[in-house]
Amino acid sequence: MKLKLLLFVLIASRLTTYAQYDKGMIKQFFDAALTDRTAYENLRVLCKEHKGRITGSPEAEKAVEYTYNLMKEMELDNVFKQSVQVPRWVRGETERAHINSSKYGQTEVPVTALGTSIGTGNEGLLASVIELRSFAEMEKVGEASIKGKIVFFNEPMDPTLINTFAAYGAVGAYRTTGAARAAKYGAVGVVVRSLTTALDDYPHTGVMHYDQEVKKIPAVAISTNGADILHKLLQDDPELKFYFRTTCQNLPDVVSHNVIGELRGSEYPDEIITVGGHLDAWETGEGAHDDGVGCMQSIEVLRLFKQLGIHPKRTIRAVMFMDEEIAQSGGKVYANEADEKGEQHYFALEADRGALVPRGFGVSGPEERVENILALKKYFEPYGISEFKRGGGGVDISPLQRFGTPLSSCIPDDQRYFDFHHSGSDTFEQVNFREFQMGSAAIASFIYLIDKYDL
Amino acid sequence: MKLKLLLFVLIASRLTTYAQYDKGMIKQFFDAALTDRTAYENLRVLCKEHKGRITGSPEAEKAVEYTYNLMKEMELDNVFKQSVQVPRWVRGETERAHINSSKYGQTEVPVTALGTSIGTGNEGLLASVIELRSFAEMEKVGEASIKGKIVFFNEPMDPTLINTFAAYGAVGAYRTTGAARAAKYGAVGVVVRSLTTALDDYPHTGVMHYDQEVKKIPAVAISTNGADILHKLLQDDPELKFYFRTTCQNLPDVVSHNVIGELRGSEYPDEIITVGGHLDAWETGEGAHDDGVGCMQSIEVLRLFKQLGIHPKRTIRAVMFMDEEIAQSGGKVYANEADEKGEQHYFALEADRGALVPRGFGVSGPEERVENILALKKYFEPYGISEFKRGGGGVDISPLQRFGTPLSSCIPDDQRYFDFHHSGSDTFEQVNFREFQMGSAAIASFIYLIDKYDL
Repeated sequence: MKLKLLLFVLIASRLTTYAQYDKGMIKQFFDAALTDRTAYENLRVLCKEHKGRITGSPEAEKAVEYTYNLMKEMELDNVFKQSVQVPRWVRGETERAHINSSKYGQTEVPVTALGTSIGTGNEGLLASVIELRSFAEMEKVGEASIKGKIVFFNEPMDPTLINTFAAYGAVGAYRTTGAARAAKYGAVGVVVRSLTTALDDYPHTGVMHYDQEVKKIPAVAISTNGADILHKLLQDDPELKFYFRTTCQNLPDVVSHNVIGELRGSEYPDEIITVGGHLDAWETGEGAHDDGVGCMQSIEVLRLFKQLGIHPKRTIRAVMFMDEEIAQSGGKVYANEADEKGEQHYFALEADRGALVPRGFGVSGPEERVENILALKKYFEPYGISEFKRGGGGVDISPLQRFGTPLSSCIPDDQRYFDFHHSGSDTFEQVNFREFQMGSAAIASFIYLIDKYDL
Repeated sequence: MKLKLLLFVLIASRLTTYAQYDKGMIKQFFDAALTDRTAYENLRVLCKEHKGRITGSPEAEKAVEYTYNLMKEMELDNVFKQSVQVPRWVRGETERAHINSSKYGQTEVPVTALGTSIGTGNEGLLASVIELRSFAEMEKVGEASIKGKIVFFNEPMDPTLINTFAAYGAVGAYRTTGAARAAKYGAVGVVVRSLTTALDDYPHTGVMHYDQEVKKIPAVAISTNGADILHKLLQDDPELKFYFRTTCQNLPDVVSHNVIGELRGSEYPDEIITVGGHLDAWETGEGAHDDGVGCMQSIEVLRLFKQLGIHPKRTIRAVMFMDEEIAQSGGKVYANEADEKGEQHYFALEADRGALVPRGFGVSGPEERVENILALKKYFEPYGISEFKRGGGGVDISPLQRFGTPLSSCIPDDQRYFDFHHSGSDTFEQVNFREFQMGSAAIASFIYLIDKYDL
């Protein structure tokens, strides 16, 4: 008994010492992140000099070169690109739209073409409007009321949902499939209320999908203020006409790249921990919160490990995924190549929810590992990071699920995220240095602990 | 035993029902707040039409009228003003400053006069500069190195402190007492590095205090970018001279007002719950986060109670305190009048930490009551509001402490707060609707529970 007790005391004191040591290490990560402007300055360059980096664009390829060179200069153990065949959609000229009412004259409203949508042709599209709040309503009113008209989906994100991602998810289908579904009823075009929590003049774009069986019709998002105006005028003048002009086009696929930087593992170099964001971004804004920050936080994780002289047991990869916004081809290629090379993917984290103040982490995967990882919460509470939840991952890392890899996401606060998302207001100025670097430090610390304790 | 068990089951199930009911009520508070723009629009008017409302100014008095009328129109049970004698300091003409270096020529830098500081006179002040990082360093270099010079206090807020209020507190004395202390060593003026977490061109003002025994010398805050430039040029050219011109003046006291709106209690009308912010604000910005939001959230609490048809047991007062920034006279008058009238102050909350996303509440007071109030945490966790801490209050409500009143503060996230604080960037545009109204709903729910359960 005495020996057991002694052993217990020894182990307990050793665990306390470890915990103290780790708390100190985490403080070092935060101190280092909050006193270094490298990542923030790199984010500025990505936003300001590589605006317009939508999948397949020359700007996207320049962003590939920029991040490749950035990691080369960091003297990592390995920096390389992966070729990815990606779709190429071009927006064309700035969109124009107005409401034509015999009672109220002409009112300009801000719109943006939805990603992969076809253009209206040079003349634009002029038609009567039917306002709908749901697909159920569309089915109810039927073809007779819709044929030849522009369908205006005006369902807002539910402001009473505290989780704004849930509110976004609940109405996302109007943007992604609204045109395909309205075309079945004979609609000639679609106008979707922007998916945003803000009431302002920025239209918010995003990808949409046609149904190959049905006629393709043009589709735009209208700003929330614009949607409210259109709604109001329609109450008073149901006969008004809506005009919009888009000159977007789908061109043949092109070759683009994922960009990957590695710190080689000291004990298990063949086991890979991925931390990534996506490099492509909608050209309406600068792609700051979505997802310049995820890319730069991923690179910052490697910089922090190097600065603090930490040699991870496993290989840590910062991955700039290409083409998250349109066809998610970068993530698929990344997993396919892993498969071909027989890589072991130990853990993966995606940072693609903006860089507002970090609140926690989400993790999915094998139950025992998830449980152990979620128990790391105690290390993060002093930093106000306490939401450790089951369920995590991201579009780009999700194909790694087939390897049984635990998938994780950093969870920043989300109250303001959809104000910026996919719009002209997603600029570098909207990213706060401290919130951004709190996120970098949190991710780096999280990976440090998972690697060190074989979680 | 059986009876006891039955009783237990009955009580337990009743408690569960109560808890369910209250969760529903709190959801109603959040739903109502997140779908109503009244308070946000009122904040816009306060910021845009009542900019420059520093203590004693005509703008402050117009803000008194504005909020008085606003509450009158709400048909509250009582709306009244309290006369407060306040100091009157006027900034005068826009401040100017530059660095004069024989090596680098003239470099303009942004400065702002500190509140209650004297002006330089029309000619301005030109003198050599000594840069110091602490009062200890000032004592060490002594009068011989300081006499006839401008002292430049260049100690930044510690970026590694996660609690930015702690970082602010740690260096606040350079602004508040730097001039008084430097004057003892013969300094002719003081330039203080702005107390902010941002690196930018906004100087941040704030109150300072002279020592009546020592000569009054002019004092300004310089933007952090400006401070970095001055520091750099001083390294290269210690003989450079700094010029600044301020024309601020201290005028005789004037009469201003606290503004108070009440919902009378249905059971204990003589017991008062105070929820307040301060109406005065530095004229460098619009006083949005500091503290237009606290005022408008306090009024919104009353509006939410009315909208939801809740009749509080106790009298709830929204108080717009006057003169928090300079002499805190509004808070003193409020407590003194309470004393004279023999008012019972049951609970008080101050909202004066901006309107970033709410994270929790702080409470001080008698231990048993504090403990019961902190136990309310469980109701707020679904809203991401989980930091319930001992220690709370605010400058304006602190004089109520003499009545044994528990004092509380709403705790919003603080990573960005000092970017805006006391500077030209504290504008309405920096306040997000959802974050602001999450705060309003949290405060209203908190007061609802404290009143209902006699905590």
